[in-house]
Amino acid sequence: MPASGWFWAQHMTLISLPEDYTAAVFGASGGIGRALTEQLASDPRCQCVYAGTRSSPAPASARITPFPFDLTDEASIQRAADSVGAPDIVIVATGVLHDDILKPEKTLRSLDAAALMRAFAINAAGPALIARHVLAKAPRNRRMLFAVLSAKVGSISDNRLGGWHSYRAAKAALNQIIRTFSIELARTHPQCVCVALHPGTVDTDLSRPFQAGVSADRLFSPEQAARQLLTVLDGLSPVASGRLIGWDGQEIPP
Amino acid sequence: MPASGWFWAQHMTLISLPEDYTAAVFGASGGIGRALTEQLASDPRCQCVYAGTRSSPAPASARITPFPFDLTDEASIQRAADSVGAPDIVIVATGVLHDDILKPEKTLRSLDAAALMRAFAINAAGPALIARHVLAKAPRNRRMLFAVLSAKVGSISDNRLGGWHSYRAAKAALNQIIRTFSIELARTHPQCVCVALHPGTVDTDLSRPFQAGVSADRLFSPEQAARQLLTVLDGLSPVASGRLIGWDGQEIPP
Repeated sequence: MPASGWFWAQHMTLISLPEDYTAAVFGASGGIGRALTEQLASDPRCQCVYAGTRSSPAPASARITPFPFDLTDEASIQRAADSVGAPDIVIVATGVLHDDILKPEKTLRSLDAAALMRAFAINAAGPALIARHVLAKAPRNRRMLFAVLSAKVGSISDNRLGGWHSYRAAKAALNQIIRTFSIELARTHPQCVCVALHPGTVDTDLSRPFQAGVSADRLFSPEQAARQLLTVLDGLSPVASGRLIGWDGQEIPP
Repeated sequence: MPASGWFWAQHMTLISLPEDYTAAVFGASGGIGRALTEQLASDPRCQCVYAGTRSSPAPASARITPFPFDLTDEASIQRAADSVGAPDIVIVATGVLHDDILKPEKTLRSLDAAALMRAFAINAAGPALIARHVLAKAPRNRRMLFAVLSAKVGSISDNRLGGWHSYRAAKAALNQIIRTFSIELARTHPQCVCVALHPGTVDTDLSRPFQAGVSADRLFSPEQAARQLLTVLDGLSPVASGRLIGWDGQEIPP
């Protein structure tokens, strides 16, 4: 699809953010996180993208400033928040569905304590602590867009297939954390937007074992997903705060 | 109110359960858990209540059989599930809102990693692991009623006041776990009922610091709360499975 490819290759511009805005991406080495970082860095209005990774730092460039952090180490998250200051847009693009400890459970018998606590640590507590330390620096006199990548499978009312117990529970917890933060921010920082995003099914390591049932037009490349998410974020007003918003801009009920 | 007092003092009978039913209460030393244990033991149809506690065992009696378990030790939960077998009704009445580590947060700045992980361990992972090990023994040929005490503050859509970040997040996770289990049980054990319950505000150590805004007719004694919850449970059919049900029998949206 050359036309589409040509289109996606163009930079996009976040018109709701000020000229010379700054951005931060926590989890900049994952599929979606890297694409978000690159697209933000290619926006002519973007002055700097702070790109946070745990192990393999993003390559520094005129517009990309790498920083380290570890989701399971609050002190490192606090140092990272101190180093990035108060960017205009912050996206937490971390998330693990399967690793050495965490496996997406198919039945209740496959649930165990280690996987549950790993899912809570990585997919709920880590992003919550980034939110806590970054939002504590949100300026009162201008807008901050704060988003975490969550997932529709975290929606309780949308849960019809079951399975993935640990991941679903952790994402539900994360969605509740974002709702809780948004209520406080509405009082103290009424211009701030704080949301959870559902990126859809994206062709990354996270989703690769689970793409079989996904139709081709609903399996997004990381670049397409990043563009869709940035487009959604760019259009959000504070009334969206606290909600889980899909890649198509539609709210997903809790 | 002598009339009411007289009424509450009577035993109640769970008519949906078989004659000579057995029950298990995990967390039988807490305010609601103890009252549930005593009311189940006083039901003439109840043959035996297995009463699980971490430290101070329930006093054994003709109808009460104590057993130990630790929410943070999966092996102890598995041993407990082995010892109680497949009771007709199982209630997980554990839950911590404040202890040495966990404090109900008032602002985002008071959130920290230790409190978050403690809330997830005690209020989500522990009950989830009890569910996992007990439900794995659910018989296919008869009904099992399985309930965990959750809380309305775990509801994301009902979250209007904010605060209590860790507790809210953990209860949202628990509600999602119950939903996930219920979907699998509906396929394999269609007679089984698996729900989360909101007991209302009950006059216990958990709620004591937070009772100021609660009107007298909405502050329940543990005995009244236990009676209300047992009445609700007794009336539930499998279509209620996976839901968060209040003390008044009404569903609370996720």
